[in-house]
Amino acid sequence: MSVLNAGATIGILGGGQLGRMLASAAEQLGFDVSIYCPESDCPAARVAAAHTVGDYEDPAALMAWAQTCDVVTYEFENVPVAAAEALIAAGVLVRPGAKPLEVSQDRVTEKSFLQSSGIATADFASVDQAADVDAPIKRFGGQGILKTRRDGYDGKGQARLEAGDDYGAAHKSLGHAPCILEALVPFVCEVSVIIARDHVGMSLCYDVPRNEHVNGILRHSIVPARVDPGVTDRACEAAKALADALDYVGVLALEFFVLEDGSLLANEFAPRVHNSGHWTPEACATGQFEQHIRAVAGWPLGAVTRFHDVEMANLLGDEALAPPAELLDDSVLTLYGKRDAKPGRKMGHVVKRRT
Amino acid sequence: MSVLNAGATIGILGGGQLGRMLASAAEQLGFDVSIYCPESDCPAARVAAAHTVGDYEDPAALMAWAQTCDVVTYEFENVPVAAAEALIAAGVLVRPGAKPLEVSQDRVTEKSFLQSSGIATADFASVDQAADVDAPIKRFGGQGILKTRRDGYDGKGQARLEAGDDYGAAHKSLGHAPCILEALVPFVCEVSVIIARDHVGMSLCYDVPRNEHVNGILRHSIVPARVDPGVTDRACEAAKALADALDYVGVLALEFFVLEDGSLLANEFAPRVHNSGHWTPEACATGQFEQHIRAVAGWPLGAVTRFHDVEMANLLGDEALAPPAELLDDSVLTLYGKRDAKPGRKMGHVVKRRT
Repeated sequence: MSVLNAGATIGILGGGQLGRMLASAAEQLGFDVSIYCPESDCPAARVAAAHTVGDYEDPAALMAWAQTCDVVTYEFENVPVAAAEALIAAGVLVRPGAKPLEVSQDRVTEKSFLQSSGIATADFASVDQAADVDAPIKRFGGQGILKTRRDGYDGKGQARLEAGDDYGAAHKSLGHAPCILEALVPFVCEVSVIIARDHVGMSLCYDVPRNEHVNGILRHSIVPARVDPGVTDRACEAAKALADALDYVGVLALEFFVLEDGSLLANEFAPRVHNSGHWTPEACATGQFEQHIRAVAGWPLGAVTRFHDVEMANLLGDEALAPPAELLDDSVLTLYGKRDAKPGRKMGHVVKRRT
Repeated sequence: MSVLNAGATIGILGGGQLGRMLASAAEQLGFDVSIYCPESDCPAARVAAAHTVGDYEDPAALMAWAQTCDVVTYEFENVPVAAAEALIAAGVLVRPGAKPLEVSQDRVTEKSFLQSSGIATADFASVDQAADVDAPIKRFGGQGILKTRRDGYDGKGQARLEAGDDYGAAHKSLGHAPCILEALVPFVCEVSVIIARDHVGMSLCYDVPRNEHVNGILRHSIVPARVDPGVTDRACEAAKALADALDYVGVLALEFFVLEDGSLLANEFAPRVHNSGHWTPEACATGQFEQHIRAVAGWPLGAVTRFHDVEMANLLGDEALAPPAELLDDSVLTLYGKRDAKPGRKMGHVVKRRT
């Protein structure tokens, strides 16, 4: 059934903070939540009605779990495509499906798909061996970023290259994995579009945040982005084109570089709720987590009306250890329930309403 | 320890919708939640990390559970006083303590306590047998409401009397329980104060809602109440006096009748988050559930700044069965995950932001 009633069970693949916040949003709408992940103790499972500990590569365990759910969604993009496809083939309702996983898991596939959807990206080239860097790095003006095609996140699995560097050493540092070389983009800022699309193809974009990264990790998202409205309009059009091309159901995030002349280059997308949308529950009529749940449940999307100007700041590592002092103003604190505050680890976030 | 760190466990006595919403608020702040209640499947347990099924009258089970919690609070006022006292005697941090239970569980004790705190109430008299009605009903102008002293809620356990009625039959209909006879109050509207008080005695009141009841059940809370500001100011002063008199830690609700001349008569209080405060998460900087958790965790209270005019409507019985149609405007839906939509049962609520 493509429209769920309250009381139905929403299955979430993945047990991290995104799963936790999705679970809470689903529960507010009266759904039960069941988490599937390899960890026996995880942030999402502690707020959910049910938890199956299993490997994403274990089709029998996955299938047994999925049979207890009315719809299955995911909170991270590295769910094996084959697992999602097997569930779908067995008749499980998986939203947003297998295709967004397949496209987003590989940076070459992703950029190719973006371009084929009419969305400009930085120049790029596949790199299977160090020698593959030679030609494109010249074309890119003597600079580039070598990234693994798969499994990089928060700035991991990357090496910046200049023409003449030891490409072999760089490729070795990335484990000789299949890579992509991306042209460096002289951007003035980064923005992202958080878009929701429902099962009948209606879509809504939140106001576009400007995102500040430090060492490859998102630190702040600021709304409004204070870029030209024409820029954010074009960003939203691109996100809509992507969501339509994927026949997407749920929330996705598309990240952009904004260039000096106002043109946009898409960087990457995440087929899920996104850190740069963590301000939406506090600032908008409907937050991104509820919006994703509405979409995967087959419910109509909620309004994305924004009530406040906001700044969202991530709390990394031990920044989350002493929260009460943060709370004396109107800020809203969210902590993820992670047991171990490793340096750089996303432990929570604070949303400050500015108006 | 009177100030909890994130990652601590908040124990909640009771498994209903108030426990569910308290649990979600605690989880957003990074706490784990453990529910204690007699039901094996209940709305709160399905969103909590841990659940102990036990009777409130089983001290050994209660104590074993409480040892796993860093603080214990409750979501309903009929927790046995002796159970709370035993936990406290054993060194368990119980907030808001045993006294608010003792006072609020008995309507005669409650009204006496309100009066001794300087808060006016309707006239009342104890009724242990039918003949006890004779004198006070005359004093009350020939009308009154006979209520059981204990265990009534949502208009249950009540009988309206006129002088000369068969008092014996009325008392029999209430099981010959110890009762209170209350004078009828010719009120123009009902309001309530939702007040939070922290462990160092700071308190904050939310803007006062006007409450509309039908058949003894709350249907709507509307903010602002559109009564004279002097009235709401006096209501807040009374609530502060009550919270101080109880040395209260957490959120409590004090209900009032507003008379034609603007004077106030307190009706009853609930030592917990309250249905008439269900609009606060959507309308204010900090919702009542988070506020209660902050207080019992020893954290500073959050701001109660109100951003929107709102109307909260309860969904009773089968009104919650077809939610999507409700969602096409900016309304925020909360459903409680109850399995059985009995007539009149509170199944969820909708908050409509009017500005």
